[in-house]
Amino acid sequence: MVKAIQIGLLGFGTVGTGVVRIIQGHQDHLHRQSGSSIAIKSILVKNLEKSRAVDVGNAQLTLDPWSIINDPEINVIVEVTGGVNPTKEWILAAIKNGKHVVTANKDLMAMHGNELLAEAARNKCDIYYEASVGGGIPIIRALMDSFTSDKITKIMGIVNGTTNYMLTKMAQEGASYKDVLAEAQALGYAESDPTADVDGLDAARKMTILARLGFLTDVALEDVRSKGIRDVTQEEMKYASKLGYTIKLVGIAERQGDKINVSVQPTMMKNSHPLSSVNGVFNAVYVYGEAVGETMFYGPGAGELPTATSVVSDLVQVVKNLKLGVNGLTSDSHYKEKKVLSEAEQFSKTFIVLRVHDRAGVLAQITNLLAGHEVSLESIIQSPLQGEQGSELCMITHRSSKASLDGVLSKLNEMEVVRSIDSVYRVEG
Amino acid sequence: MVKAIQIGLLGFGTVGTGVVRIIQGHQDHLHRQSGSSIAIKSILVKNLEKSRAVDVGNAQLTLDPWSIINDPEINVIVEVTGGVNPTKEWILAAIKNGKHVVTANKDLMAMHGNELLAEAARNKCDIYYEASVGGGIPIIRALMDSFTSDKITKIMGIVNGTTNYMLTKMAQEGASYKDVLAEAQALGYAESDPTADVDGLDAARKMTILARLGFLTDVALEDVRSKGIRDVTQEEMKYASKLGYTIKLVGIAERQGDKINVSVQPTMMKNSHPLSSVNGVFNAVYVYGEAVGETMFYGPGAGELPTATSVVSDLVQVVKNLKLGVNGLTSDSHYKEKKVLSEAEQFSKTFIVLRVHDRAGVLAQITNLLAGHEVSLESIIQSPLQGEQGSELCMITHRSSKASLDGVLSKLNEMEVVRSIDSVYRVEG
Repeated sequence: MVKAIQIGLLGFGTVGTGVVRIIQGHQDHLHRQSGSSIAIKSILVKNLEKSRAVDVGNAQLTLDPWSIINDPEINVIVEVTGGVNPTKEWILAAIKNGKHVVTANKDLMAMHGNELLAEAARNKCDIYYEASVGGGIPIIRALMDSFTSDKITKIMGIVNGTTNYMLTKMAQEGASYKDVLAEAQALGYAESDPTADVDGLDAARKMTILARLGFLTDVALEDVRSKGIRDVTQEEMKYASKLGYTIKLVGIAERQGDKINVSVQPTMMKNSHPLSSVNGVFNAVYVYGEAVGETMFYGPGAGELPTATSVVSDLVQVVKNLKLGVNGLTSDSHYKEKKVLSEAEQFSKTFIVLRVHDRAGVLAQITNLLAGHEVSLESIIQSPLQGEQGSELCMITHRSSKASLDGVLSKLNEMEVVRSIDSVYRVEG
Repeated sequence: MVKAIQIGLLGFGTVGTGVVRIIQGHQDHLHRQSGSSIAIKSILVKNLEKSRAVDVGNAQLTLDPWSIINDPEINVIVEVTGGVNPTKEWILAAIKNGKHVVTANKDLMAMHGNELLAEAARNKCDIYYEASVGGGIPIIRALMDSFTSDKITKIMGIVNGTTNYMLTKMAQEGASYKDVLAEAQALGYAESDPTADVDGLDAARKMTILARLGFLTDVALEDVRSKGIRDVTQEEMKYASKLGYTIKLVGIAERQGDKINVSVQPTMMKNSHPLSSVNGVFNAVYVYGEAVGETMFYGPGAGELPTATSVVSDLVQVVKNLKLGVNGLTSDSHYKEKKVLSEAEQFSKTFIVLRVHDRAGVLAQITNLLAGHEVSLESIIQSPLQGEQGSELCMITHRSSKASLDGVLSKLNEMEVVRSIDSVYRVEG
């Protein structure tokens, strides 16, 4: 009889409770999978007296993280406290003590993942973090294991449930940004300070993690440009719909040659693309690999049990690696040199809405300008402005570089016939 | 230095070639993942003289399968020949020789999977078969590993690319069944004898495999009822669209209490459901688990490189298990008693189109009949028949048992005011 693998659990909130429940309730199945039994030895809590929704068995509750991190009998630390401080310090110390780590902490992995993974590789320790992106969606495992013999060229993700809920409401019910934000806050989907969600920061963290795995290089949060959804209007939603598109907050990690580029922005997704119909609080990650082609993984982006399910599947992986003697090998998988594509070099289609004066030759002036910058048009709609003089021009360009596009936008701004540039969106699908 | 794991490859067609190419080209990455190097020792071919698209290195080509199956140095058999005869005999013999098996063969796994898996478990051998369902989509790994601590209640799959291509064309272009079949045949998406695809037999095989994994019981092909798409008409497509649905060939494996039920049929999927927008030759599998909630896996259902990618990821798993000493444990995972729900006990929503005579009280007669069988309506549309007397009634019921529904249909058939029952479809989403 092999000795049970000993777990130290940092955090005993909802996810921690779910983890304990699953480990207690599925010993047979976990043993069948990993070849070992799994025992929770100690749990870091904030309050020793609080009554708990699960029976912790022989596990010891403690207020002292160091009694867990420095316990030589503990093989694996499961971290579900969240936040970067003091979590980073705990995890680094645990790794230096030779412990393997399972974490659900996207902030930690996005901001300090490169450092933690390098330290883990040096110490032959695992760090697994399936629950940090897409809750219950096994996207990290897919990138690590299933596409192991493929070369990923693009990852697009709807990885923030709050903003996807808001954009879905705006598209389906014609509500304004302000109203849907208030509703999302009332339902508990959005924080009272919604910055991290609506400005795309949460999505940027998750894209950092996915890009690092997809491109096997040490992508950092600072490499990710992000733009949020605060300025998305009903008019733009309606234009998108008329042209066969849906506006989504999309994280895009892509490779052009040997350079990579990661960004988050509101994006017009063509309605034939599977991401366009990902609605409400659901998340989805679309992966394009040279061998596999297009795949998409869809599911709940958050929630106690989906998250706990992901944490336990990571734990099984660590236990398997322990018996294999291969811990730490995947920690070192960001081994390629990082070359970041400058913004100017990036190519994409773009959606532009302009208000122009009604003059003869306006359209010719504008299309000549575009041609001069090597930007060609996929489609254009001109319509009279309602209740005022002038027209609205709504255009979708073919793929062009950001440098060319910026040249166009700056010239448009100077043109006398152009009253205003109302919208500029990236287009995908 | 650990000795390389020795592979015997049965079959050297397109998928076999892809497998060799990936193994030759990714030794470093495979070693990093599995902790071992992987060498192809022998390859079963049909023709020793044929020139090959890949360099086979030290691998020996042979016409004799038994020289591979009986080779004591070979650890793992990779089977990509397809078909059941003589493949089943080979695989059984290989297992009895203690060899692990990776196969892409859906027919083999659907028809003889229970026997092969039981034999593998007895011999402590692995059988992995990711490529048998959904080509490059890692759905089998997700069911085996990621949802290991969850309880699956329903799996719905669009698992046949040919029929999905045909239904997509019919829906988007208004083409007839006959025309899209001819086009699919011309493009090589459908066989000259399209029976296996259009009658739902191929989908039934894949659903057998998924249901076995989802419900951990020995589902057999005979347990799956299947109905194909031969009778789907343009009129039905239009009705579906008008009501906000899309007709798809959907395999459904579901659990009611401790009983399970697996079927394949053309189904009206609500347009808000992610499966409704899976188009063309793409496949998708939707999984509902008690913990994780709703997830969906989408991607290419076939193709050389997607399939080879799945085969190699299975191979890495076998090599890991070899070092873990846990081979054969997952082979034995269909350990629950199988209880199959009778057709009469099955509950679902149903779409019905009737032609009726224009008489006073027709609608009352029909709705009274439904109420008498405890079938209630979600929606109903009555419209005049074009170019003839009478009306068309198009109804969607709430969930009712198949027994109640059959009672209703048989009574409708006898009613004098009912001229014909034109369509009956299962409704989901």
